[in-house]
Amino acid sequence: MPSFVTIVSLPSSSSFPTNHHLWNSPIPIQPKKIPPFNTKPIKLPLLRATLSMEKETPEPHRPETFLRDSDDTTASSSSSVRARFEKMIREVQESVCSAIEGVDGGARFKEDVWSRNGGGGGISRVLQDGDVWEKAGVNVSVVYGVMPPEAYRAAKGSASDDAIDHNKLGPVPFFAAGISSVLHPKNPFAPTLHFNYRYFETDAPKDAPGAPRQWWFGGGTDLTPAYIFEDDVKHFHSIQKSACDKFDPTFYPRFKKWCDDYFYIKHRGERRGLGGIFFDDLNDYDQEMLLSFATECSNSVIPAYIPIIEKRKDLPFTDQHKAWQQLRRGRYVEFNLVYDRGTTFGLKTGGRIESILVSLPLTARWEYDHKPEEGSEEWKLLDACINPKEWI
Amino acid sequence: MPSFVTIVSLPSSSSFPTNHHLWNSPIPIQPKKIPPFNTKPIKLPLLRATLSMEKETPEPHRPETFLRDSDDTTASSSSSVRARFEKMIREVQESVCSAIEGVDGGARFKEDVWSRNGGGGGISRVLQDGDVWEKAGVNVSVVYGVMPPEAYRAAKGSASDDAIDHNKLGPVPFFAAGISSVLHPKNPFAPTLHFNYRYFETDAPKDAPGAPRQWWFGGGTDLTPAYIFEDDVKHFHSIQKSACDKFDPTFYPRFKKWCDDYFYIKHRGERRGLGGIFFDDLNDYDQEMLLSFATECSNSVIPAYIPIIEKRKDLPFTDQHKAWQQLRRGRYVEFNLVYDRGTTFGLKTGGRIESILVSLPLTARWEYDHKPEEGSEEWKLLDACINPKEWI
Repeated sequence: MPSFVTIVSLPSSSSFPTNHHLWNSPIPIQPKKIPPFNTKPIKLPLLRATLSMEKETPEPHRPETFLRDSDDTTASSSSSVRARFEKMIREVQESVCSAIEGVDGGARFKEDVWSRNGGGGGISRVLQDGDVWEKAGVNVSVVYGVMPPEAYRAAKGSASDDAIDHNKLGPVPFFAAGISSVLHPKNPFAPTLHFNYRYFETDAPKDAPGAPRQWWFGGGTDLTPAYIFEDDVKHFHSIQKSACDKFDPTFYPRFKKWCDDYFYIKHRGERRGLGGIFFDDLNDYDQEMLLSFATECSNSVIPAYIPIIEKRKDLPFTDQHKAWQQLRRGRYVEFNLVYDRGTTFGLKTGGRIESILVSLPLTARWEYDHKPEEGSEEWKLLDACINPKEWI
Repeated sequence: MPSFVTIVSLPSSSSFPTNHHLWNSPIPIQPKKIPPFNTKPIKLPLLRATLSMEKETPEPHRPETFLRDSDDTTASSSSSVRARFEKMIREVQESVCSAIEGVDGGARFKEDVWSRNGGGGGISRVLQDGDVWEKAGVNVSVVYGVMPPEAYRAAKGSASDDAIDHNKLGPVPFFAAGISSVLHPKNPFAPTLHFNYRYFETDAPKDAPGAPRQWWFGGGTDLTPAYIFEDDVKHFHSIQKSACDKFDPTFYPRFKKWCDDYFYIKHRGERRGLGGIFFDDLNDYDQEMLLSFATECSNSVIPAYIPIIEKRKDLPFTDQHKAWQQLRRGRYVEFNLVYDRGTTFGLKTGGRIESILVSLPLTARWEYDHKPEEGSEEWKLLDACINPKEWI
């Protein structure tokens, strides 16, 4: 299959890897539909960067690495951050999928591997209609692209500005890698989990002496139950806090609030779930420290989530419990299709739809003007989505 | 309850009433969130007009009319178009709801009536979990608002331009009324129907001698089956064509294509259903003729749809048929949440959520990478959504 160079827009330059779905998905674009570069004045919050990449090709086997040969691929502790990040997310994909299959006992993950001619690629894994999970997707991807100088400048901020001849700055090559996952269980007492960790790096621009490399980390883990078991939510948040506290005591409170703010369904005035942690554009710490932090967070997924599932997966439930879970699944769909930056971006730019929308639940429900009875368990969940709580 | 003046953005000035959902919904907005007027240069296709309106109040009874006292409310054939349009859509709401209840035999419509202090209001009717329909909404509304001069100028085009002192043009009062409906049956062989007809009128701007009143009609009726019965689709399109042909032989082919183009799920490369007719911003015909045309189309809903439901509502079906219907319902959700201008506009500006989202099905489904077997009945439906056909 011949590959071709394509152009896509990014949701935000400073926060390029805004969402996991971007990272799930090979991004084949019709080049004619989008102009090569955004030439309008760019403001940071509204910036839509552009990048070029090649069409994906299915692969029969997982390669050792998706990095280009020119990158350091030895993945030792002294090797490049990009190589070590790829190694980390692939290990996490393995361990999370194993843990899910182990608990599910029924279905197995189906794997799709793909690559791009110019370097990069990904592994998508989906388990559907298992004994415990109705739909579980765990994807990793590595992307090489080119961003316009405006995006680079906006993302870089004022650092070293004096040393750069901005007029000479051309398109800036970048690298991005990420893992992303959404896990929807069947039992209405077993919560949905989402996590996503990503790393972004630019090359040093050519023809612009003094312009530095840039890099960022982003990600988060959040829990979306239909019913509140306080012990579960405390356990989940405690694990997030422990992961954060190993690095910086300000991380958990900041990233907990960021999570509550991000997963907000504005037209409902409620969050899609009970939060967790979320961060983006993180580069104002030591790079090694943030790589360790992203690794710690990724490795916390299993201990944060699996014990909850073990406790709730076999609880008896009624049709009413199931219907309420389905209504909350409807909210999940609303958030992902209307607000989630990665999803809306992916849909608009022609990303691989099945990878982008694997985050949607198998089934969802919308009832007209449904209002849970005050004081009921359903009402308590809704209240906690409207008024985010401190769980620990 | 004290009412307050609010500001909302419109999706497109020339096509203000772009979609039914806008007309279903009282539109309470937080004034501080949206600047009073868009002061950026406005291009016609991207124009976001603004208007101010008051918060809605629930009413115990349906009023004789939602028109302001200052409007002509006698609703005789010689009275104002706005009065006759309101009368027409309220009659159609009555007759469609009666027909639905008659066929359903189970559930009844629940009615919500609301009004605004400054004039305008609406009647929302929803039937849920009936014997035949899982969710059926039929709403009418009347809105008084104010649009900025840019929106008026863009919508008006170049007519009478010389006579107007544009510098003196202030905000332009407008009137809009519409009926809108989405009907989702339970049986997977019985199709979903959507229809919406709307009328829009500005007052003559004050302080701008020579600036004329403007008016437009918009609307359409379209069919979304999960399985194709050619007889049904031909019957449905024939009724649409007959309604069109009574007025202009170019209407059906133009509005059939417009419908195929509008209900396009771009990220899937497919339409949500098998189309029908759709038109917007229609004002380049005699006003009386277009009022008659909108009336004819509205009155065609029952003969176009009910006979199909009568034939299909009791057909036996399997779990596989139901699952396919649910996947197509998922597409309906994707179109409405991602593309439908009225829905996306309503969600962003704080419209009454339950009225806006009554268009969503009771239940929907997303399977990873589902591909119907080539040549199957499911494949035939998908093919017709990807490659729109001429049915008559």
